[in-house]
Formats: sequence, structure tokens, C-alpha cells
Amino acid sequence: MTVDQYPAKAHALKAAKHLKASGASDDALWYIEAAKTTLWPHSDQTVPLRQHRYFYYLTGYEAPDAIVTYSAKDDKITLYIPEIDDEEVMWSGLPLSPEQIRAVSDVDEIKYMNHLESDLKGKKLISVETYDKRDAVTMSQPLLDALDEARAIKDSHELALMRHASEITDNSHLAVMSALPIEKNEGHIHAEFIYHSIRQGSKNQSYDPICCAGTSAGTLHYVKNDLPLDDKLLVLIDAGAEWKNYASDVTRCFPISGEWTKECRDIYEAVLDIQNHCIEKIKPGVNYEDLHRDAHRILIRHLMRLGIFTNGTEDEIFDSRVSCGFFPHGLGHMLGMDTHDTAGRPNYEDKDPMYRYLRLRRTLEENMVLTVEPGCYFNKYLLDHFIQPEQEKFLDRAVLDKYWKVGGVRIEDDILVTKDGYENFTKMTKDPEEVAKIVKDGIAKGRKHFHCVV
Amino acid sequence: MTVDQYPAKAHALKAAKHLKASGASDDALWYIEAAKTTLWPHSDQTVPLRQHRYFYYLTGYEAPDAIVTYSAKDDKITLYIPEIDDEEVMWSGLPLSPEQIRAVSDVDEIKYMNHLESDLKGKKLISVETYDKRDAVTMSQPLLDALDEARAIKDSHELALMRHASEITDNSHLAVMSALPIEKNEGHIHAEFIYHSIRQGSKNQSYDPICCAGTSAGTLHYVKNDLPLDDKLLVLIDAGAEWKNYASDVTRCFPISGEWTKECRDIYEAVLDIQNHCIEKIKPGVNYEDLHRDAHRILIRHLMRLGIFTNGTEDEIFDSRVSCGFFPHGLGHMLGMDTHDTAGRPNYEDKDPMYRYLRLRRTLEENMVLTVEPGCYFNKYLLDHFIQPEQEKFLDRAVLDKYWKVGGVRIEDDILVTKDGYENFTKMTKDPEEVAKIVKDGIAKGRKHFHCVV
Repeated sequence: MTVDQYPAKAHALKAAKHLKASGASDDALWYIEAAKTTLWPHSDQTVPLRQHRYFYYLTGYEAPDAIVTYSAKDDKITLYIPEIDDEEVMWSGLPLSPEQIRAVSDVDEIKYMNHLESDLKGKKLISVETYDKRDAVTMSQPLLDALDEARAIKDSHELALMRHASEITDNSHLAVMSALPIEKNEGHIHAEFIYHSIRQGSKNQSYDPICCAGTSAGTLHYVKNDLPLDDKLLVLIDAGAEWKNYASDVTRCFPISGEWTKECRDIYEAVLDIQNHCIEKIKPGVNYEDLHRDAHRILIRHLMRLGIFTNGTEDEIFDSRVSCGFFPHGLGHMLGMDTHDTAGRPNYEDKDPMYRYLRLRRTLEENMVLTVEPGCYFNKYLLDHFIQPEQEKFLDRAVLDKYWKVGGVRIEDDILVTKDGYENFTKMTKDPEEVAKIVKDGIAKGRKHFHCVV
Repeated sequence: MTVDQYPAKAHALKAAKHLKASGASDDALWYIEAAKTTLWPHSDQTVPLRQHRYFYYLTGYEAPDAIVTYSAKDDKITLYIPEIDDEEVMWSGLPLSPEQIRAVSDVDEIKYMNHLESDLKGKKLISVETYDKRDAVTMSQPLLDALDEARAIKDSHELALMRHASEITDNSHLAVMSALPIEKNEGHIHAEFIYHSIRQGSKNQSYDPICCAGTSAGTLHYVKNDLPLDDKLLVLIDAGAEWKNYASDVTRCFPISGEWTKECRDIYEAVLDIQNHCIEKIKPGVNYEDLHRDAHRILIRHLMRLGIFTNGTEDEIFDSRVSCGFFPHGLGHMLGMDTHDTAGRPNYEDKDPMYRYLRLRRTLEENMVLTVEPGCYFNKYLLDHFIQPEQEKFLDRAVLDKYWKVGGVRIEDDILVTKDGYENFTKMTKDPEEVAKIVKDGIAKGRKHFHCVV
């Protein structure tokens, strides 16, 4: 394998080992189809392409309409690519040649699609899904589980891609924070982040950027991104660039004026304290559920100190689950090709609201990558629907009323579990003084984009 | 209908009139589903949403997972929207209420989805497509044709949306052209265009921006957009913002240095001459095929004058179709909710290469909107595959060799057919002197974005 080749072989071998450990025999041929070129209904335009993650894991090949097979018995990956269509070349240019593909992928063999049918004949075929047009393929849950487990532990090639995605994201967050003089609307923040990501070669975001000001931040997956900043206090931006199909996922908050109000800083420092605590604890052997519980306990202590929680001990408040009304999501999740990556073992049916949305519920291992993203939100709709009569007594509504304008705070970094601790991929500052200084410096410089129409 | 309501009723009535004229009875209920929330395979992230165009035409409603019915007999549109899901609200915020929908759409009735089944019972149902899960619906080609014909003629509400899309696009093209000091890569041009579009509220492009420098421009639908500008001569950018599901589609070319080389200007002025001629001729009653033929004839005259075409008369060269090797696509297409909008009556099976890719082959009518986008490309692969031995004699290869570096020129505007002529929605200059001045002014000002990492 040359230095730039995607390590498809190592991925297949690792997954095959997991599959064997699960008791499956190695006589079936793995069969996975790439993403397909798909048109919007009644249109000649294509739906945006997102490469099939399991296909990519076994090939490192970006283009659609290909198929990969892997024989565990022979340890052989074969990539089938579409034949060249002259008319298509006229419109879209030449696809990668087999030689060009070999330069970026260590698959064993690359063939044109016309070889596929005879190669498959008489083989037992398993996959991670079923296909309408290929009845012979069986969906194999053990194969899916094996690939998920393999994906959970990143190798050095994948980590290099993820570090690069994080760098792009750092730069883009810094640009957003510095751009306040010209950003008057949530949509401008969105534009700024995307602009700097694309300039750095990241055309795809890991997920739709969440750009909120003021109370919009109380909506966890807010993606309207179209309200004016006006007299709001905080911006929350949750956005991450994708690099060669690997994700980053970072959230920062900052005061629009460059000055923190007391209440905003109260909540910001509480969330930062939670995050620092949880990140410092990360190392192999730690159970992420414990960190999630720590996060709630630290939040509870801060909200007790601020007087929002009252009339109970930390334990009573923790046991009541009232803190889930302010921190309803999980502390974090696995990160990889998917933003919410494989093998986190969530249970969305969990009756306990503290764990229902926790997407990472296992013991950490070296070379897992995950996010740590505590948050604290002031969302009237959420509280009205969430808070039960028996939880109400723990709330001091008069104090709470001072915090609605905060909207929400979330701070999120991307963390690699190392041999004896962690590496934080996210270098963008979250220190409240430094954040305020970046915003104020931007305002002082009065940066103007050329020809900003709005 | 209030001024901001989408005129769904008028659209339905217009289509019903076409349907009746085709001889169909009005006893069937039209049934069209909105775009559906769809997850990527094995992922909890949604595929980007693009509202179903026929659904939107009959509702003006943006959100997914809704259904519209129209009874032509009763002239009644009913919109069925999903019930509110508390958990969904926590993550994504509240959907529009029926009252909020009424403010933007003149549909007759808005109901929650639980009314649908009883409302449909016993009805004959027709649609523009078939549905896996609703066998009772018949795909009706006459209904599809009727809706396509209705969509071909835009009303004032639609024209206002399209003018706004064009304004956003004009501003974004101007910003790109002015940004040369910081744009060193095709990807930067892409970023610049997207940035200014999003800032103006257009989060979706009508299509993937095509940003090429040098010979990349010879690939018609080039969307890699990742090569350095380096010592290339021209930039070609074909990009258009979308506004409330209505498209714009504009192409501009400019010299990277601010100075035209002789060969670049030769080709630019030839293409501009074609475009000016064809736009001037636009009015109701004109057949667009005639304009496409004019375009080829004017191109042939220019390429004869430049010495690229030789050894034949204009007619001989026209009849040989050799000009299709330089101008392989159609002169333009209908424009509306789709970039290549409905009812253009193309025939992609046409044996004659001059017409095979012409997407508009009918007589123009008032309030059609269309593009006029002649081009001239120097693409070795295209010519090698296209030019037949009997066409070769018309080419002077020695002269042609001087033009490869031009890559390609296309100039594209969005044109409304008016009662007795046309209105050009695209105000962005295409005058070669003005274009050069904009580029040179940008370079002289040395514009810098704050914190451009690359």
C-alpha cells in the first residue's frame, strides 16, 4: 500500500476477523453496492451523491454506480466499475481509470462491470442490506455488526483524514466568529462557514450547519438559519466540514456584541466546566455512560448554584430527571464516516429520558473517535412538554425567567481516545475571554466583504 | 388570494383546462405526494430535501411528507399535512400551523393526515406517477402533460420569484468576477458564488455550480471545481441561485488576468454575437429550432472568418454538422421550477446531432421563460470522438491548435417571452470591456477576505 492509498484491505481483514469471531463461516462473498446515480422525480438533475459508507470502507472509491465484493476465504477485494460511456464523457469528463483508482485504493482487482455476473455465478452472497434487483444477496446482520465494529476503531489513515476535517472546521469556526461586523442574520453565519469550508476543499458538510441566534438555539437541530441577529445575545453554531467522507462535528457559542451578559456567561461556564471535566476523563476503559451521568451531575450543581434548581439535594434532582429538560440530548456520539458513527449502541426505546438519546453507551477503546458536547437549553416548548408536576418543585421559575434570553449553549469537540488518554482534534478556542476578544477584534476591524449585497 | 399567497388555485385551474382540452373527464381526484423525508442508508441523517415540483405547483407548500388532492369538478385543493410529533418538535422546532400555511398558499382546505384515508375512499385517483404504497392511484399521462403545459406559461407570482432568483444570481456572479485577487482555484470560485447566494437567502442552487478554468471549460457539466487557476486564461462559471423553488441559470466567462488574449476574445465575441442575435429575435410565434439553427450558422461564419473552418461554404459546413463538435449542446431550454423545465419537447433519440440535445423545440409563447446559452468549446476528447472523416476536411488543424487554450466559452441569460418581445432577467454585464474592467478593478483593489486560510 502506498502512503496515499485508502487501506481497504486492512478494513476488510479487520471486519472479517469480527465476523469470524461471531461464529459465521467465511464461505460467503460480501457484496455491497456503491451509491447510485439517482435523478429527482421528473427531472434530469441528480440527487446529491453521498457515497455508501460500507462500500467506501472496503474501497476508498468515491464515484457512484460501482460494486465491491470481498472473499474472506481468499482475502480478495474486487471493485467493479461502470463501463465508459462516450456520451457521458462529453458532458461530465472522463471517470478515473483503473490505474488512477489503484493510486488511491489498495483493492486487489478492478474490473469493468461486464465481468460481474459471471464472477458472481454460483456464489453465496451476503451484504449489509437487501437489493430490489438482486434476490441472491442475503442481508447478514453478523456482517453488518462486524463492519460496524471494525469502523468503530480508526486506523492512522482514517485519523489523518479526520484531523484534516477538524482543521478545516477550526478555520471555518474562527472565520465565523471574526465576521460579526458583516453578519446580520443567521443565514450569513451559515454562508460564512460554508464559504471557508469550500475554499479549503470541503464541498460537503458532515451535516446541515445549525446556525442559531438567541432563542433559536433552544431547538437542537435548528437548520432554518434565516432569522436576524438583531438584539439577540448569543450565536450558537454547530457545523463541521467533511473530508473524503470523514466527518468533523464542532459547536461553538459566542456573544454577538463581544460582551457576555451575566446569564450567558453563567451558562457558558457551566457547560464548559462539564465539557472540560468529561474530556479530561477520556481514556480506554472508561464507560461513556458514566461521563454522561457526570455531565448531568455537574450541570445540576451549577443550576443549583445559580438558583434555577432548588428544593432538593443533588441526588434528588438527578433522580427526578428534571435536568433532562435542560440537557435533553446525549453527551456525545461516535464520529467517523457518519456524524453519528457506527457501534455506539444507543437504545432510542429506553424508558429513562436520561439515556434515550445517548448515542454512545459503551466502554471506550483506543482509536475510537467521539464527540463531547454537553449543552444547556432554555426552550419554553421543551420545558412545557417535558416537565412533570412532580419535577416542577425543583424549579425556581423566577430565577429561570432571567435565563430565557440565553437560548442555549452547547460546546462540542472531537476527541480521539489514545492509548492512555485522549487527543482533542478541535483546536478552536472555547475560552470565554478569548472568544470575546476574537469577536471584539472583528468588530473593531470592521471587516467588510467586497460587494456584500445583503 | 393575498399578495404573498402562492397561486395554487390558478395553477390547478389552468392545468384542469388543459386536461379537459385533451378529452379527459374531470371525475378523477388528482393525488400528488410531497417529497418525503428520506434517510441516507444506515444513517440518521436526511437526504437533502427538494420539494416535489408538481406538488409545489398545486400548493406552494415547502415541507415534506404532505399530500395534495385536487378535485377538478369541485375546483377544490386539499392539503394534508403530517400530525405534530412532540419529539420531533424538540429536535427540529414547530412546523407551520394551518394558519401560517394559509398565509403563503391559497389552497382551499388544510387538514391533518388522519383525514386522508376517509376522504379518498371510493374516489378515482390519478397522479403524475405511481406509488408503491398506494395501488389505487393511476399514473395519468394526460394529467402530467396538462400540468407540464400549465407550468410552461408563468404567471406574475412565478415571474416575481424568478426575477428575484435572477437578481441573487447577478449579484453572486458580480462578486465572483470581482474576487480574482483571492481566488486561486476553481473551488474558490465555487465558494464565492455559494457564499453570496446564501447571504441573499438562497440556500439551494438551481443546480451544481460549474466552475472551470482553462480546458476544464470544455467539459460541459464539469462540477469537480478543484483545479488551480494558475496560468489558465479564462474562467467559465455556470451557476444560478434558486428562490422558493424557482430557478435561475446564468453563465459568464472572464479572463483571469483581466486581459483578453486574441484567441479568447475571438471566441468570446463570436459567442456573444450569437447570443445577442438570438435574444433579439425572441417573441411569441418564433420557433426556437430556428434560433438554434441561426446560432450554428453564425458560429460557422465566425469560425470560417477565424480560419478554423475552411474548404467549404457556410451551407456545406452547416449540412456536415461539423459545428456540433464545437457547439454540441442546445441553444437553451425552458426555465422554471426545474432548471430544464417542463414542456420543452426535446427528442434525445434524434439521429441528427444538431437537435439531439436541444431541449426546447417549440414555438415560443408569451410568459414562457427560457435560457439562451450558445457556447463554443475546444475539447480534444470531444472532437476526437465526434469528428468523422468526411468532416475533417472542413477543419484547419493548424489554426485550431491556437485555440485549445481557450477551453470553452458559454454565455447564458434567462429570458422572459413578453407580449411583443422579451425581457432579459439577467442584468449582469457580458460586455467584454466591462467584464475586463471588473476583473482589473478587483485585482487593483487587492481585495482580501478576512482570514482566508487557503
